[in-house]
Amino acid sequence: MSKQNIYDDEIFFQGYKKIREQEVNANTLFEIPSLLSVLPELKGKSILDLGCGFGDHCKKFVDKGAKKVVGIDISKKMLEIASKENSSSKISYLNMPIESIETLNEEFDIVISSLAFHYVEDYGKLIKDIFSLLNEDGYLIFSQEHPLNTCHSAGNRWTKNQNGEKIYANLSNYGIEGERECVWFVDHVKKYHRTFSSIITTLIEGGFTIEKILEPLPDEAIIQRYPENYDLFHKPDFLIIKTKKKTL
Amino acid sequence: MSKQNIYDDEIFFQGYKKIREQEVNANTLFEIPSLLSVLPELKGKSILDLGCGFGDHCKKFVDKGAKKVVGIDISKKMLEIASKENSSSKISYLNMPIESIETLNEEFDIVISSLAFHYVEDYGKLIKDIFSLLNEDGYLIFSQEHPLNTCHSAGNRWTKNQNGEKIYANLSNYGIEGERECVWFVDHVKKYHRTFSSIITTLIEGGFTIEKILEPLPDEAIIQRYPENYDLFHKPDFLIIKTKKKTL
Repeated sequence: MSKQNIYDDEIFFQGYKKIREQEVNANTLFEIPSLLSVLPELKGKSILDLGCGFGDHCKKFVDKGAKKVVGIDISKKMLEIASKENSSSKISYLNMPIESIETLNEEFDIVISSLAFHYVEDYGKLIKDIFSLLNEDGYLIFSQEHPLNTCHSAGNRWTKNQNGEKIYANLSNYGIEGERECVWFVDHVKKYHRTFSSIITTLIEGGFTIEKILEPLPDEAIIQRYPENYDLFHKPDFLIIKTKKKTL
Repeated sequence: MSKQNIYDDEIFFQGYKKIREQEVNANTLFEIPSLLSVLPELKGKSILDLGCGFGDHCKKFVDKGAKKVVGIDISKKMLEIASKENSSSKISYLNMPIESIETLNEEFDIVISSLAFHYVEDYGKLIKDIFSLLNEDGYLIFSQEHPLNTCHSAGNRWTKNQNGEKIYANLSNYGIEGERECVWFVDHVKKYHRTFSSIITTLIEGGFTIEKILEPLPDEAIIQRYPENYDLFHKPDFLIIKTKKKTL
């Protein structure tokens, strides 16, 4: 099974760091506020952050009262920054791939993940592993690239009019799940496309109850300041899912 | 609120009847098998069929052991055929719009609906009405046009290559909910677009647990016999949702 570590590629890392350092980007405008909006009360909770990156979320969870946060990431470079910029006695950063969480020897109240699941090939195993790591009444809350985004395999993503404005998102191969290669700072970045129904049904069959689903879109204020985001009305970038472990 | 009755328009009705009389169509290949695949045990159950049309499903439910089936439809023409072709002492056909089910004075074990919800403007009210009509542990199971289908407001639905083959579904306005007018045998057929997340979240907030979601696609045997259905891999036509009333 592939455990991709693009984030330790120097070219990728520098490109990615530059985007995340921008005060305004797709994450800060849409993904992060949506993900945070569905969090339950964190006071006294233990939290596992899958693909924690620079540790920004881990720090936020501690600030909101979490008693213990474990952040894991495959990238040493990311965790070096996390340890510098977002350290706390309540946070442990572990350098490991999401695919290996079955080796963790503890339980959590909340498992959270921001934009990492679309890099994981075996989603069914991931959901099983998370189920095992969660306490009774535990939550799994995650964001991922939207299936209307991950489905794309080749060709132009948009049809534009004569003025260069995007009028259609070019939708193809939505129904064909599996690996997609794309270029993102470097060639051959691998993501895994899954349909909406398959993402949801795997969760339900894995023992989770769906509590909320969000596809964040710009509001009027955002469109006025950053009109280029109008494209999201044609094709949202992110999917946020809040689930709870089924009580027996 | 609009309660559209296109099915009693003579031109529409004849066009629709012709399609449904074909032995093989999108409904028989994809929608009907998927919808039936998620039914619970029907023996001894009372069932309400919203938008029952010709009554084919109502008859099937009785054959599978349902003790009582109520089929409602806004179209008198449809129900005339239902009464002729699919009558049973266990089935009552009522001529009423789906928007008026709050006036029904009885409870059901299962509410089912095939391809009708996208004609209903006030989905939130519909889900509330259904919740009230269901017994404890009752099921709501429905199919509707897929949101990737209902979102379209204008322009070409497909981009084709030089050989006339469909290569992209032209996705637009997915994030903008509300009325869409389309031409289907007659002009000005009204449908209502809702996003995936809004369809699901309304159900959850309305007191239902999501049990299964399907986006039916062709298998290899279907593609070999009816290769024109390959397009569905780019954009599925149908969405099927199985939900259960939450136990308190």
